[in-house]
Order: sequence, then C-alpha cells, then structure tokens
Amino acid sequence: MKIIIDAMGGDNAPGEIVRGAAEAAGMYQSQIVLVGNQAKIEQCLKSCPESGKKIEIVHTEETISMEDDPLSILRAKKNCSMGVGLRMLKEDGDAFISAGNTGALHAGSSLIIRPVKGLQRSAIATVLPFQRPCLLMDCGANVTVTAEYLEQWAIVGSLYMEYVMKVKNPQVGLLNNGAEECKGTPVQVDAYQKLKNHPDIHFHGNIEGKEVPAGLCDVLVTDGFTGNITLKMLEGMAKFLFGQLKEIYTQNVMTKMSYLLMKDSLRGLKKSFDASEYGGAPLLGLQKPVIKAHGSSDARAIVNAVRQAEAFVKTGVIHEMEERMKKYDRSALRTKAAEETAKESE
Amino acid sequence: MKIIIDAMGGDNAPGEIVRGAAEAAGMYQSQIVLVGNQAKIEQCLKSCPESGKKIEIVHTEETISMEDDPLSILRAKKNCSMGVGLRMLKEDGDAFISAGNTGALHAGSSLIIRPVKGLQRSAIATVLPFQRPCLLMDCGANVTVTAEYLEQWAIVGSLYMEYVMKVKNPQVGLLNNGAEECKGTPVQVDAYQKLKNHPDIHFHGNIEGKEVPAGLCDVLVTDGFTGNITLKMLEGMAKFLFGQLKEIYTQNVMTKMSYLLMKDSLRGLKKSFDASEYGGAPLLGLQKPVIKAHGSSDARAIVNAVRQAEAFVKTGVIHEMEERMKKYDRSALRTKAAEETAKESE
Repeated sequence: MKIIIDAMGGDNAPGEIVRGAAEAAGMYQSQIVLVGNQAKIEQCLKSCPESGKKIEIVHTEETISMEDDPLSILRAKKNCSMGVGLRMLKEDGDAFISAGNTGALHAGSSLIIRPVKGLQRSAIATVLPFQRPCLLMDCGANVTVTAEYLEQWAIVGSLYMEYVMKVKNPQVGLLNNGAEECKGTPVQVDAYQKLKNHPDIHFHGNIEGKEVPAGLCDVLVTDGFTGNITLKMLEGMAKFLFGQLKEIYTQNVMTKMSYLLMKDSLRGLKKSFDASEYGGAPLLGLQKPVIKAHGSSDARAIVNAVRQAEAFVKTGVIHEMEERMKKYDRSALRTKAAEETAKESE
Repeated sequence: MKIIIDAMGGDNAPGEIVRGAAEAAGMYQSQIVLVGNQAKIEQCLKSCPESGKKIEIVHTEETISMEDDPLSILRAKKNCSMGVGLRMLKEDGDAFISAGNTGALHAGSSLIIRPVKGLQRSAIATVLPFQRPCLLMDCGANVTVTAEYLEQWAIVGSLYMEYVMKVKNPQVGLLNNGAEECKGTPVQVDAYQKLKNHPDIHFHGNIEGKEVPAGLCDVLVTDGFTGNITLKMLEGMAKFLFGQLKEIYTQNVMTKMSYLLMKDSLRGLKKSFDASEYGGAPLLGLQKPVIKAHGSSDARAIVNAVRQAEAFVKTGVIHEMEERMKKYDRSALRTKAAEETAKESE
C-alpha cells in the first residue's frame, strides 16, 4: 500500500510531519512517500531514529499556505506539495494525508481525485469524540448545501461508519434547530423527508445542539458552515471548562490536594477532546482516500492518520460507495421513469 | 411599571410561573399582571406566602402549546394567554414575559408589538454565561437572514449591552467558519463588509466556534439556525462534561473524597450553565420589551426575568434604538441620494 504524505502542510511542518511519517513507517507495512522540500525533509529525517528505508521523498519547490486562495492549488501553485501529492494519488497511490490548507485540499481533491460517480459533492467528515462516536459531515468544505447533498452524505457516511468504524446499521441524524419535521431552513425541511423515505438510510430524526454529545446517532449531517462551527465549539467548550476546573483546583490547599487525586483521570478526559487524537478527518465521497489531518498536527497525529488511512483502504469502502451510488442513480431513474409513465397515463 | 406574565407558558406552568410572579411582586415595585386560567392561578397563589395585593389576574380560556403552529397565536388561538398578554402590552403594559412557545411569541410580538421603525426583523437574544457576557443573536427566530438583518442586530444588540448590561463600547463579532473576510456563505461575506464599515459598530471581526467561550466580543450576530444550535450546544456540552466528571469522581474512595472537597465550587460552575440563571432572552428590536423565559423555567427564573424586565424598561434603551434606527435610515437615504447625484453628474 502506498500512502502519500504532504510534508509541508500544517503549523508544525515539516518537522512533526516527517517525524510522524518516520514513526509510521517503522510501525506499519505501507510504503510511505513524503512530498515536499527534499533538503528540509532529509534534515528532519536525520533526527528520527526510526527513519527506515521505506520512506521515499518526492521533491517540490512550492508550498501552499493557510492564507493562499484554495483554488491556487489548481493554477498558480499547482506544483506545491499538496498538488503534486494529489496527482500522485490519482496515478498510483492508495491514500493521501495533508495537514495543510483545508480549502485547497478539498478543491484540489474534488477536481483531481473527483467524487465517486453519482455523488455531487465530497465532504469533510470528523468523528466526534463522544462515548458513541459520531461522524459529523460536512465540517467546512461546502458552506451552502442542497437537501440532496445531505441525503448523499448520509449514505456515504453510513458506509464509512459501517466499514471503517464497524458500527452495525448506523443511525443518521439531521442537525437542526428543533425536533419537529418542519424545523430548519427549507433545505432541512426537504432533507428531513428525503432522509426519512430513503430505503438505505436508518434515520433517527432531527438532532438539536444540546443532543450532539448525547450519542443519539452515528452519522450527523449538516452544511459545512454549521458543521464547522459545531466542531470548533466542542473544542472551545472543552478548553473553557477545563480552564474553569483548573481555577477551581488552585483555589486552596484542599482543592490542590483534591487535584492530585484526580489528575490522571482528568487528563484522560481532556485528551479525548484533543484533535491530534482523532487521527484525521476523511474527505468522504472521493474516488480515493484523502485524509485531512488537523492543522496543529504533531507526529502522533500523523501516525494516527496513517493508521486510519490503512484501515480506510483495506475495508474497500470506496468500492461499496460506488456500488451504492450506482444503485441509487438507477433507482432515482426508475422513480423518475415511473412518475413520467404515471403522468402520461393520467 | 406594569409587567405582564403569561401564567400558562412553559413546562412548569402555571405552578412555578405563578410562584415566581408572587415572589417578584413581593421583591420589586412593579405591578404584576398574570394572564391565564383564573381558577388555576388562584389555586397556585394560595400556596404562595408572598402573594401580595399587587397581583392582578386576567382570565383567558385558551393556551398555546409547544406543538401549536406559531401563527395560530394570530388566528385560531388569538385569545390564548400569550396573545391576550401581548395585546395588553401593546395597549398600556411596560413589559411581557412568557416561557411558552418561542415561535408563537416571536410571531405574535412581531405582528402585535412590531419592530422598532426602520428595523426589518426582531431577534431572540441570549446572554451567554461566560466570564465576559456575550449577547448571542439571533437564537432561533429567523432561520434565514440577510446581511442587513445582521447589521441591524449588531446595532440594537450593542445598545442593549451598553444600556442594560452596562458594557462600554460593546465589541461586535460575526459568527463564522473562519477568521478571514472571505469566509462563510455570501450572507456572511456581505455582512463582514457592512459591519466593518458601519460608523456606530465596534467590529471585532469573525468569531470561530472555538472562540465563542473565549470572550472576544460582547455581541455575537448570526442567523437563527446557527444561533440556536450554538446556544444549545453550550448547554449540551456542559451537561456532557459534568456527567463525565461525575463518572471520574465515583471511580474509587480517593476520588469520592476528592469530590467532597470540590463539591461547592463545581456546583457553582454547573449553575452558571443553568438556563434558569440567565433570566430570560429578550426579543430585541421590538417597540416594547418582550422576554422569553426558558421553557423549563422555575419560580427563580421568573423572578430573574422580572428583574431583567424592570432593568430593560428603566434604561430607556428602546427609545435609543428608535433614535439610532432613524439616524441610520436617514444616513442610508443620504448615501443613496449621494450615489444617485454622483451617477447623474457622471
């Protein structure tokens, strides 16, 4: 298996990315390819005791920054590490990982790797760190959506949870501002009916904001604007509440003592909201696996992303998505044909 | 001052609402009017030791439920306690409080009380319980918005924070999926420019989800769909994390001991996320103060809502909103006239 990693993307690139890639090369079977500035990568590899022979380097001069226009990956900066990596994936790679500019990664993979046939848009999906893991999609790629996008994401999201996360009969929720069918903008109202009536979707119903952590579903669909704010709110709220706890613990000698008794457990809880633990966010619906690692990824996050990429490839879930979209296309055509026949016979 | 309270709205009506009203009547100067089923209200008042002579009861037969269509307040159920209360407010009341159906309260007050002249839509505003209180608006009344709504809410929200919450030069943030000017849907992109260029708005810039608890602004504007989900996420995340903490504390004897040392402080923190502590959510932009108490309001929440209503009325902030909207209208007209003159002279 050939896993391509963008060595230049993210706040801690290339140091942490290269270190994570070297660790992963030592741990897993896959062939790791690092794309980026060769001299810098080699320099970083020198300090990695694990650096094995399995790491190949593909040199690129350019890098796309967080500030660059996402579409520059297709034009002015098409030879940046991310662009070259995506084209390598298209040609003969098995998966691509980048911690760089999310917009560019989405734009580049949509146009270079392309969505699975029949799927209108790919989306960024993130597994939320609750007791019942929940795949939130879209987390920011598509700020405006149609009801049909949400319906299609429910299908590919369910397949991901079933094949990669081993969840049986994944339940789908629609993020909304109330429980009733009539809630939301016209997009949610329409999506509710589509999700409810789709034979391949186990629809739980609307999920309100306060229910997000409650573990009511396995896949939560929403537009990328709301999804992005929801995802980042989790991070912000966890950080805020742990900050408040810390203040309480440092109030006096007694509370400080109390903290010593609790330290390890609290750290565990805090860690579960740490983005580097999630692995990465798959860009779901593409013809080949692309994984967006968090911008602040460290070596450990990259190791997790490689593990996740291997699992993603091995399950063959993308083939299943293609089959499902074909069936869906055919059944949509059948319904349309039936409607037309019905009209004619009226 | 005459404060009218919907005795029949909310999960704990009429018992807790009447009890809260009676307590408030004993504590504050205002004349309290309870609208609802007279027999039931009188029954509840019997058990209130504080029940003073200051409480007037206006009898209504009907009640609007949480499941009713919001617009029924104007049609089939126009004589429900909420509808009668709003018409009394219009006539000679000073403020109205209800813990009932939010949609109906918004629809009813928009059409009976009417927005301040020049303001296109009123919005539900909630003060988020962080160290730096932040007014989030809209929290659910308007699921789709225009950039102009957001701009107008920034103005009335700033005035509320300045006059009622005594915040000097309130800073305004735009809830968005990234920091850059270009982020969001076309509505946010347009709103960013409007907020940045408005002479009466102190614009901080975009606020991402993770920054919501960080206290970067005093007024946070967004559409009612995103605002509702954001508000309820805070509640859900606080509940989830306290649940996790409880599990940690009950692990063994040592952690249980530790809990005893921390109990009071933790309760304080938990309480700060308890909706009944916020008072209520003002429906901002109306010609008279309307306050939406939380659906699960208890007597204490009603007392807080009465206190808030008194403060709201005393500051005269609604007069200020009217003046500001007049000025804003005039300056908009001036700009338009100037543009036309410029065009003609070209």
